[in-house]
Amino acid sequence: MNTTAHMNYGDWEVVQEGFDQNFLGKTESIMALGNGYMGIRSAEDETYTGETRNTFVAGTFNRFDENEVTELPNVPDFAKTNMTFNGKRFALSKGEVLDYRKALNLKNGELTRTFTWEYEELALKFTFRRFVSKLNYHLYASQIVIENLTDTPVATTITAGLDGQRTNSGSQHFAEGTKGILEDTYLQMTPTTTQSKIDFAFTLTHTLDGADSKRVADIGRRRITRDECFELQARGKVTYEKRVMVYTSIDNDVANHAVKNLGQISIDYLKEIAPVKFDKLLADSAEAWQKIWDTHPIRIDSQNPQDQLAIRFAIYHLHAMTPAHDERMNIGAKGLSGEGYKGHTFWDTEVFMLPYFNFSFPEIAKSLVTYRYLGLRGAHTKAASNGFDGAQYPWEAAWPSDGEVTPVWGAVDIVTGQATKIWSGFIEQHITSDVAFGIKQYMDVTGDLDFAREMGYEILIDTARFWASRLEYKDDGVSAFYEINDVIGPDEYKEHVDNNAYTNYTAHWNMGYAIALIDRLKSDEPEIYAKLDEKFNLSNLTAELSLKLPMVYLPQPTEDGIIPQDDSYLGKQIIDLKKYKDADGVDSLFHDYNLEQVNQMQITKQADVLLLMLLFENLFEKDLKLKNFDYYEPKTTHDSSLSLSTHAILSADLGKLDQSYDFFQKAINIDMGSYMKSSDAGIHAASLGGIWQMIVFGYGGVRMVDGKLRIEPHLPKEWTELEFGFDYQGESLTLKVDKTGMTLVKSDNGNDVHFTSKGAQYTLQNKLTISQ
Amino acid sequence: MNTTAHMNYGDWEVVQEGFDQNFLGKTESIMALGNGYMGIRSAEDETYTGETRNTFVAGTFNRFDENEVTELPNVPDFAKTNMTFNGKRFALSKGEVLDYRKALNLKNGELTRTFTWEYEELALKFTFRRFVSKLNYHLYASQIVIENLTDTPVATTITAGLDGQRTNSGSQHFAEGTKGILEDTYLQMTPTTTQSKIDFAFTLTHTLDGADSKRVADIGRRRITRDECFELQARGKVTYEKRVMVYTSIDNDVANHAVKNLGQISIDYLKEIAPVKFDKLLADSAEAWQKIWDTHPIRIDSQNPQDQLAIRFAIYHLHAMTPAHDERMNIGAKGLSGEGYKGHTFWDTEVFMLPYFNFSFPEIAKSLVTYRYLGLRGAHTKAASNGFDGAQYPWEAAWPSDGEVTPVWGAVDIVTGQATKIWSGFIEQHITSDVAFGIKQYMDVTGDLDFAREMGYEILIDTARFWASRLEYKDDGVSAFYEINDVIGPDEYKEHVDNNAYTNYTAHWNMGYAIALIDRLKSDEPEIYAKLDEKFNLSNLTAELSLKLPMVYLPQPTEDGIIPQDDSYLGKQIIDLKKYKDADGVDSLFHDYNLEQVNQMQITKQADVLLLMLLFENLFEKDLKLKNFDYYEPKTTHDSSLSLSTHAILSADLGKLDQSYDFFQKAINIDMGSYMKSSDAGIHAASLGGIWQMIVFGYGGVRMVDGKLRIEPHLPKEWTELEFGFDYQGESLTLKVDKTGMTLVKSDNGNDVHFTSKGAQYTLQNKLTISQ
Repeated sequence: MNTTAHMNYGDWEVVQEGFDQNFLGKTESIMALGNGYMGIRSAEDETYTGETRNTFVAGTFNRFDENEVTELPNVPDFAKTNMTFNGKRFALSKGEVLDYRKALNLKNGELTRTFTWEYEELALKFTFRRFVSKLNYHLYASQIVIENLTDTPVATTITAGLDGQRTNSGSQHFAEGTKGILEDTYLQMTPTTTQSKIDFAFTLTHTLDGADSKRVADIGRRRITRDECFELQARGKVTYEKRVMVYTSIDNDVANHAVKNLGQISIDYLKEIAPVKFDKLLADSAEAWQKIWDTHPIRIDSQNPQDQLAIRFAIYHLHAMTPAHDERMNIGAKGLSGEGYKGHTFWDTEVFMLPYFNFSFPEIAKSLVTYRYLGLRGAHTKAASNGFDGAQYPWEAAWPSDGEVTPVWGAVDIVTGQATKIWSGFIEQHITSDVAFGIKQYMDVTGDLDFAREMGYEILIDTARFWASRLEYKDDGVSAFYEINDVIGPDEYKEHVDNNAYTNYTAHWNMGYAIALIDRLKSDEPEIYAKLDEKFNLSNLTAELSLKLPMVYLPQPTEDGIIPQDDSYLGKQIIDLKKYKDADGVDSLFHDYNLEQVNQMQITKQADVLLLMLLFENLFEKDLKLKNFDYYEPKTTHDSSLSLSTHAILSADLGKLDQSYDFFQKAINIDMGSYMKSSDAGIHAASLGGIWQMIVFGYGGVRMVDGKLRIEPHLPKEWTELEFGFDYQGESLTLKVDKTGMTLVKSDNGNDVHFTSKGAQYTLQNKLTISQ
Repeated sequence: MNTTAHMNYGDWEVVQEGFDQNFLGKTESIMALGNGYMGIRSAEDETYTGETRNTFVAGTFNRFDENEVTELPNVPDFAKTNMTFNGKRFALSKGEVLDYRKALNLKNGELTRTFTWEYEELALKFTFRRFVSKLNYHLYASQIVIENLTDTPVATTITAGLDGQRTNSGSQHFAEGTKGILEDTYLQMTPTTTQSKIDFAFTLTHTLDGADSKRVADIGRRRITRDECFELQARGKVTYEKRVMVYTSIDNDVANHAVKNLGQISIDYLKEIAPVKFDKLLADSAEAWQKIWDTHPIRIDSQNPQDQLAIRFAIYHLHAMTPAHDERMNIGAKGLSGEGYKGHTFWDTEVFMLPYFNFSFPEIAKSLVTYRYLGLRGAHTKAASNGFDGAQYPWEAAWPSDGEVTPVWGAVDIVTGQATKIWSGFIEQHITSDVAFGIKQYMDVTGDLDFAREMGYEILIDTARFWASRLEYKDDGVSAFYEINDVIGPDEYKEHVDNNAYTNYTAHWNMGYAIALIDRLKSDEPEIYAKLDEKFNLSNLTAELSLKLPMVYLPQPTEDGIIPQDDSYLGKQIIDLKKYKDADGVDSLFHDYNLEQVNQMQITKQADVLLLMLLFENLFEKDLKLKNFDYYEPKTTHDSSLSLSTHAILSADLGKLDQSYDFFQKAINIDMGSYMKSSDAGIHAASLGGIWQMIVFGYGGVRMVDGKLRIEPHLPKEWTELEFGFDYQGESLTLKVDKTGMTLVKSDNGNDVHFTSKGAQYTLQNKLTISQ
């Protein structure tokens, strides 16, 4: 009998023990392979009903038809390998599966699968290995070792090739293009996206060691395969290897984008590495991964060893999914691990993932913020089409110039059969201040003045222009002020609300920041000022911003000290959410209520007012934060994976360390945990950034506050020591925290680093210890 | 252990005993359901890796992109029904399957599947039934009965709905459209084809009897499902029923093609039949089938009972696949049972299938020939684009006005990676005289003067015009004549040949027939003559045809009496084909030779010269036919399903009855036989027409020769009696043949029927017996 599948963990490994066809999605997602250029869901080599086979190449967006929005296409599948033994199709759904172990090694990015399969007269031992190279990111390689455990030879067929029949849930993004076997060795297919006209070249070669085989090719519509047919000897063993190269006509590391050239350089490289062993290719890739691990290692001494694994899991996936090689691309909400959210970029980048890169890989962070600069054109288009000035960033973004790509129509009302309108693309407007906030954070942390002068200042001013035009003048007879009505805040369970606190406060900040920035540029950087003045007429703009800023309506605390999430929230019905918060999965609430009903209750999907209090922590007194935390948290379902990390950090700030650690545990288990259905649609990218933030911002206490570095660690009682590195304005720092205090080390003789801690000012030259 | 799947047969049933996931394609195709409007491959309700789920609606052609040709789209799947029991996915690939029996009842069109499944703690007995209605051809209905054979209740989930993620091997033909659950009962989806803009409405409802269930709906991209979740009681039984209505905006039985209306009439009808039991709906459909069976029953007393089953199998499928309801549609080469040949119509219709309808259902035959009249526009376009006059029919046809839809590029040369050009659409030109021949046969058999005057004469003249312009003048110094060079004849293993005998003789016939026709019309039917004269300038045309006709080069017998298949054939190498002719499957030859090599050898794919000798039997002496039969048959691989029936009939004519019966046996087993991989791509439509021809034309000896009825039966020794009915020029006849002779009966008091038999003239008034 098949054992039930369950998760297990090593120091550097996420492991599934036991096979269960009902839970394929879990490890497909959380063990997904990627190198930022391409991502492959870790579906098994052999195919199963219920699987989701996805392979994506970052940035290659295409639109199926005018009724759909652009999305990241599911490219031809090259990982699939089907086998027959004595004519019997190999599948773990039948027979006995012994010692099944599927594991992702986070350290070197290798996926392995080992087990013994007994079926009728067969007894075979399998070892599967695969990776996408972090060194040459066009390369995928896999190896299968099959051992015959019986004394009888087994007639064996291994079928592999390129399967271009893949779709995005039925939408086909490719014209078929050419396919064939070149030089009797290289299976090649060159499809082209239907609308964006991006050419792809896929080139596959394979070898079989340990048996004489007959090769049989088969070419059909959108697919090409080649079988290895051979006798697996009694007690014998064979090794089957596959190598695949992927190129596209938008690759920025190729000069000649002609599809023939893409195919030829693939073949050339496959020839070059033909003598190189699988282990060496893997070692080369592991070396590239090791550079990441060596950059700013994080060490957690915890009662729960999974805490250490969690940050490795987060960092692995953040680098697997981030297209660091190309500033025209950004991170998808499911990374490159699933069709969910169509590969689109959300505020998740700036608010949840960018901080990790700011503090750890500033050059990658620069690529991510540059993407927003390239996106200005789309942001102008969106603002203009809504009748506003400046840069209104799209709620969902794909290719930078695409502008808004949020689908207009979403899930269907099951009763009326009418599609519900997705309002986020129209009215979830806080994305614009989120982007501005992210840009500012990048500049503060890295001190990258080149970026600031070429792009950053412009974005901050252009977003402020948007907000100035977005404000709605209101005179209630007592006073006149500016409102922001009919929006969705971070809490997406409340649509069409007025004066969402998060939106109004962040817009207000954006405008105020721009005023100060313009003022400083005028005096300190006249050339930059002149350049921007030409674009924006800065004196007029400053006048408008200065006039409006003090009149922006900022929701104030009630008598009980609660900042209203929006104008209507506090008047709504309150229900007990305990049973929904304890449930596995995120939609239990909707088994009892529909969105319309939830809209009428004080139910919050994710941190909203509390996120505001975290991001702008000096704006609010601790007592006020406590009151709001105690008010809003019980009303929050955490149905968004963006919620728990915010609550973990904020509760730690508020001295609720036990509760914080409870949030931390829940947060690290969103994908990695034991619930086997959590990640079917893909990994939760923002949540990974949240894991890093909980450790570094939360327990490590490293934070930018009002543009300045502040370090105030507080460890949960389960941790004895925490040590991690980070970059700050060109300096490389290490912080070690234990129960006695903290030690800061700067690794070179660069500039002094100034920071505050608990109100005191410090200057770090080389090493500094602050006792508790 | 699963028993190995194998075929079995009843009087009216094709049966698979034992389940084997390796051979899903066989019964998917040969047990396909259809009513001419829609066709469904009989994939199992539950899904398997390796299955091919296809549902087609006749005539709804669409083109994926400019690189592909128009094809019949695979519409959303409504037959799928997945189940879980105690959380375990139901699939016969695991556990024990007892008494597995899948059967198509040819008489009433019902597909059934019964078995017991034991898996871990489960023991369940299943009965699946489904059909598409022959009465209301928009209706599909299915029923599943599940019995719990244990004393423990089983938590059960049944999932069904509409799955629009289906593609044609990866090509998606539909924009998604709306989807929802209307009136809390009707799952509805309304996709539209991307290029031809045909709207579809699919409406599904289901019921569960025998348990209280909770219904859970799920809507995703291109799909909508609704689960029934319930407890199947100990020793309990439930009945699950599904009904689906399908409408499209090209349906000719609906006036208002607005998609909302299509959806509404679907719901209205489902409401109307809600109280009607499954068995009654099936009985209504069976009654419609019974009218077909009653029309011209065929009875064969044979030592091999499968001979009787074969003609029932053929007639069932001919009616399942033929869109008799709409003259804008014709029969696809795989009917509605698979993606093969993209739903396109070939010469298969006129030469292989039309004769059955001419003699059995002349009103359906009329619809099929009318399709060719509607196709004249496309035929004119094709001729003009090739620089010819008149009507050049497309080798592959879809919507009548589409013109040529043969793909230009086909299989890829595995060595060079270059696609091979498909020449049939350019140079397989005999289709034009095949169509003319079919039209003439229709007119001769039915005596339908209305059709002849409105359409038939025009086609026969217009095709002759094409041939006159197609001829190539040649003067070799000795004499001057007209050749037809660079063609493909029926033997597609010979591309780019000159003066293919079949092509030249049939072109010659077409021209000669037109001359005689014009001459007769001028004197007998001046009004028709005038109408056609206006179109064609008949006196000029007659002059041209009369000038060229005697100069058309007709390949003459060699000294050995062999008519050369083409100018070069007889000079090519001869090899022994025995091993290839004995192999299962049709591509064994190509394991040893490539097409280029086959082109250089005397290897023929299918009847070519011999087909000519069968269709124009009075043109050739018996002795000559014998010599050519003995020469060509050993060189023929019969790799085309169009070959065996021709050989069976011709060899019977030539007195080789044992050999003929051997061909007959092979021919009836093309789809129905025990080889489990024969029909994966779909059923062989022309072969079904061939089965009827072997019986009625071959052994029954009923044939049109030079426009006159001739009846010369000769039974194989395995048959003791053959009795069948047929229509002839409005009269309904029955012929009974046994070893002593034949008896003809005419069922009404209509016109006398004149015919010949072995040189003698007969007139049938009511009954006539001719002794051996």
